Amino acid sequence: MNKDNIVSAGLLIIGDEILSGRTADQNINFLAKNLSENGILLKEVRVVGDFENEIIFAVNELRKKFDYVFTSGGIGPTHDDITSLSIAKAFDQDLILNEVAHEILIQHYGAENVNEARLKMAYLPRKASLLDNPVSSAPGFRIENVFVMAGIPKIFQAMFEASKKELKIGCKISARELKISLTESIIAKDLTDLQNQYREISMGSYPFENGTSLVFRGFDKQILEEAFLKMQNLITKIDPKIIIEIL
Amino acid sequence: MNKDNIVSAGLLIIGDEILSGRTADQNINFLAKNLSENGILLKEVRVVGDFENEIIFAVNELRKKFDYVFTSGGIGPTHDDITSLSIAKAFDQDLILNEVAHEILIQHYGAENVNEARLKMAYLPRKASLLDNPVSSAPGFRIENVFVMAGIPKIFQAMFEASKKELKIGCKISARELKISLTESIIAKDLTDLQNQYREISMGSYPFENGTSLVFRGFDKQILEEAFLKMQNLITKIDPKIIIEIL
Repeated sequence: MNKDNIVSAGLLIIGDEILSGRTADQNINFLAKNLSENGILLKEVRVVGDFENEIIFAVNELRKKFDYVFTSGGIGPTHDDITSLSIAKAFDQDLILNEVAHEILIQHYGAENVNEARLKMAYLPRKASLLDNPVSSAPGFRIENVFVMAGIPKIFQAMFEASKKELKIGCKISARELKISLTESIIAKDLTDLQNQYREISMGSYPFENGTSLVFRGFDKQILEEAFLKMQNLITKIDPKIIIEIL
Repeated sequence: MNKDNIVSAGLLIIGDEILSGRTADQNINFLAKNLSENGILLKEVRVVGDFENEIIFAVNELRKKFDYVFTSGGIGPTHDDITSLSIAKAFDQDLILNEVAHEILIQHYGAENVNEARLKMAYLPRKASLLDNPVSSAPGFRIENVFVMAGIPKIFQAMFEASKKELKIGCKISARELKISLTESIIAKDLTDLQNQYREISMGSYPFENGTSLVFRGFDKQILEEAFLKMQNLITKIDPKIIIEIL
């Protein structure tokens, strides 16, 4: 595995409604799955409220740490939508009327319906490039390595689709999973030994109601299969009947 | 409202399985709701992978910022459960065999079944106090203002119940909600004006498929009702028929 091929990402969720418990987040899991499928590792997620300083602080930390940052929420027309302004400040840029975004809103709503609130959605950081929003027209945007997207899952997902063509594809991670009807502590020692043999494979053990899922993940498919086969053999030696499923 | 009565919290979720998309988190929403009900404001959430340095860094940042920190995940018996050791290091404490935790495991599993892996769950930071786990016995723990809990939702929830008696109860936030069949941009200006009149009320606007939810939250119930009534009046003036629901 070439380390240069690892592409990393962070996610910043902006919204009081997640922190108050009013809304259950759906974007973490969507992004995690979809980045994995594109060979990008989601390395960190943060959720902050609708406070300018917190958004600026978090986006500035994350964009230095990772190849890409995605943000979710706060780009609508109301006073509590402060993401675009906060991102502009994080990048030390003005917020200006983006003519292309303005035209998109006019096409969608009709010029007479682009009131002050809707017009706000066309004010973007000076160097923003747009991310298509096929659901409700008002675009997301990209600025350097940060993709600023809506919080509503359907729109977040559509904007992620639009962002995909701009992303470097990293080394894809492969995964295998073995479900067994055995509590994890029984195989913990064998698993540790195997992990020490195969440092480049990440081996996770996840208990569920009546058993354990052993999840092996790695960049090198051949080494992954080798390690996973050893695990299967270990389990078979204990008792082949405890294998519930091999994925 | 007395600012001294505001109690704040952060949540740190530890687990590769959330970041890979294998598992959809359920603990954020549970904790957010339950803290709100106890007058505690969840102010920030972070999700990091199973890496010691990242856990130490995040927990040290969060515990300085907030009255309480809750962590979720990584306290099981396998090699990928590194939360207890990481927390001990964050507090510059040794990880030692906690005799009470050890006895709990013996009572639950029988002495002959407390193997090396299970025994690992009784190694806790020197100054940890235990959090009861009625589901699967192995306890969570508290160290200063940090509550270290399991990732499995059922156990996380049980441990939160156990932690509740140790929490200061803050000023409770009240909330009102008005659902209208109107797109948010139409009432955005009125809402901004009202927000400027009532700085101590947090007014959120959340679009859904065919309308908007206006959520007002605040510590002072009387002021909240006053602001909320003004919003209702504004909507009624536009058209009483657009009111879907008042909560």
